[in-house]
Amino acid sequence: MKTLSENACFGGTQGVYSHASTSCACDMTFAVFLPEEAKDGPVPVLWYLSGLTCTHENAMTKAGAQAWAAEHGIALIFPDTSPRGDDVADDEAYDLGKGAGFYVDATQDPWAPNFQMWTYITDELPALIGENFAIDMDRQGITGHSMGGHGALTMAMGLPGRFKSVSAFAPISNPTAADWGRKQLAAYLGDDETKWAAHDATLMMAEKGFDGPILIDTGTNDQFIDLLKPEALAAAIATKRQQATVRLQPGYDHSYFFVSTFMEDHVAFHADALYAE
Amino acid sequence: MKTLSENACFGGTQGVYSHASTSCACDMTFAVFLPEEAKDGPVPVLWYLSGLTCTHENAMTKAGAQAWAAEHGIALIFPDTSPRGDDVADDEAYDLGKGAGFYVDATQDPWAPNFQMWTYITDELPALIGENFAIDMDRQGITGHSMGGHGALTMAMGLPGRFKSVSAFAPISNPTAADWGRKQLAAYLGDDETKWAAHDATLMMAEKGFDGPILIDTGTNDQFIDLLKPEALAAAIATKRQQATVRLQPGYDHSYFFVSTFMEDHVAFHADALYAE
Repeated sequence: MKTLSENACFGGTQGVYSHASTSCACDMTFAVFLPEEAKDGPVPVLWYLSGLTCTHENAMTKAGAQAWAAEHGIALIFPDTSPRGDDVADDEAYDLGKGAGFYVDATQDPWAPNFQMWTYITDELPALIGENFAIDMDRQGITGHSMGGHGALTMAMGLPGRFKSVSAFAPISNPTAADWGRKQLAAYLGDDETKWAAHDATLMMAEKGFDGPILIDTGTNDQFIDLLKPEALAAAIATKRQQATVRLQPGYDHSYFFVSTFMEDHVAFHADALYAE
Repeated sequence: MKTLSENACFGGTQGVYSHASTSCACDMTFAVFLPEEAKDGPVPVLWYLSGLTCTHENAMTKAGAQAWAAEHGIALIFPDTSPRGDDVADDEAYDLGKGAGFYVDATQDPWAPNFQMWTYITDELPALIGENFAIDMDRQGITGHSMGGHGALTMAMGLPGRFKSVSAFAPISNPTAADWGRKQLAAYLGDDETKWAAHDATLMMAEKGFDGPILIDTGTNDQFIDLLKPEALAAAIATKRQQATVRLQPGYDHSYFFVSTFMEDHVAFHADALYAE
């Protein structure tokens, strides 16, 4: 693991690191915020998964999460959204290939050799972080924006017991039924739609739900709301009697101005769950 | 004036606008954050002047100022740092020409036709904003980062009665005595150093001071601290018996991780002054 930068930030440290990823077969970059409390011992952690076209950097610089993570003594992890490098397959579209890993393990060519983002985020990166940072991997929460909200919800439901709490900002909520989803799931996982179900938050909610609290915010003026399908997940949550808060925020769009506005609530929500025991 | 974008943000609106500037003889872009309270009538305002290489966008997306401006019911203005466009003179160096206006009115060629940033920020832009936004121009504070901290301090002292309060993050504090300053003041104002004194916060402090409170933060690990010369301004403030708080923040550098960390304090500091009467 290589340190690319470390900056003092809200009493703690915002660092950026790279390492040779075995699952993605390329160098990967990620960012970690450690609050001041991490100097005294392991702290709880909140994962933030980013959306289409993003890297580790967008949320790190624009979401304003460090202010609230510092207040609650929580670490933040900002992974990249796809494998990177000249040898990695890509597509001309912004929503497939680099910057658009969709948090799945690709089985199809040309994606399979590198696009193993599910394994990377849920297995390889947690192991690396557990070894190198003062983070208590028994107290993890997960959140994300758009494609990253999809990743957060599917990982939280797909790995029971791993995360104490899950939240999302404008998540892609029903990708098997939307253009943000069908195209990518077909490309990465193939045409057999039964293999897609493990990566659709609405279908997973109907089938299994989540053993903990959920918080979801979506703006009523979100320019992509027809692709996100919050109504499908909201209905599934209500049908399942799942512990959850689903909010439609009047006037907000899909931007980081929306994300940063509600970040305080989301970090406080996770802090409640992470400090509950 | 043209609206380029408006996003809901912390209960208010973050907008980006452009207009044909007469002082800079080019189109200029600026950003305004209006808190929710502006719907009911004019609100106080805090100007944020950015540093070298920045546009209106850097602080708007990375400084986290809207959270605190919303809390205090204060508007924010983020101007650009120089004239722009293909017809505007430039230099290969990052610290001269575009992105490096230094908040002066250039008298020398090739800069004089467009680089009139003092007049633009103190005269043209306030008039435009006063006409178009619910902002109370009798309650203005000003802050800035690096070159923008220099701009904030020199404008506050150069226009007595205009600003109720001034603060700065890692300001260029004594530009007539540093490489961030001598080069630019010579290029824009010519070789007669007597003309530079009206754009040096340390010299202005010694001569006239400021009729209100001052807050200045600089990181002890600032990689440019030898160019900023905080010690010169600190000495001038103490000698003048100027009402001021000058803080050296342990471990912080010159980045927006530093700026965002202390933004809450700066906005609260200005709110105290803007709501004092």
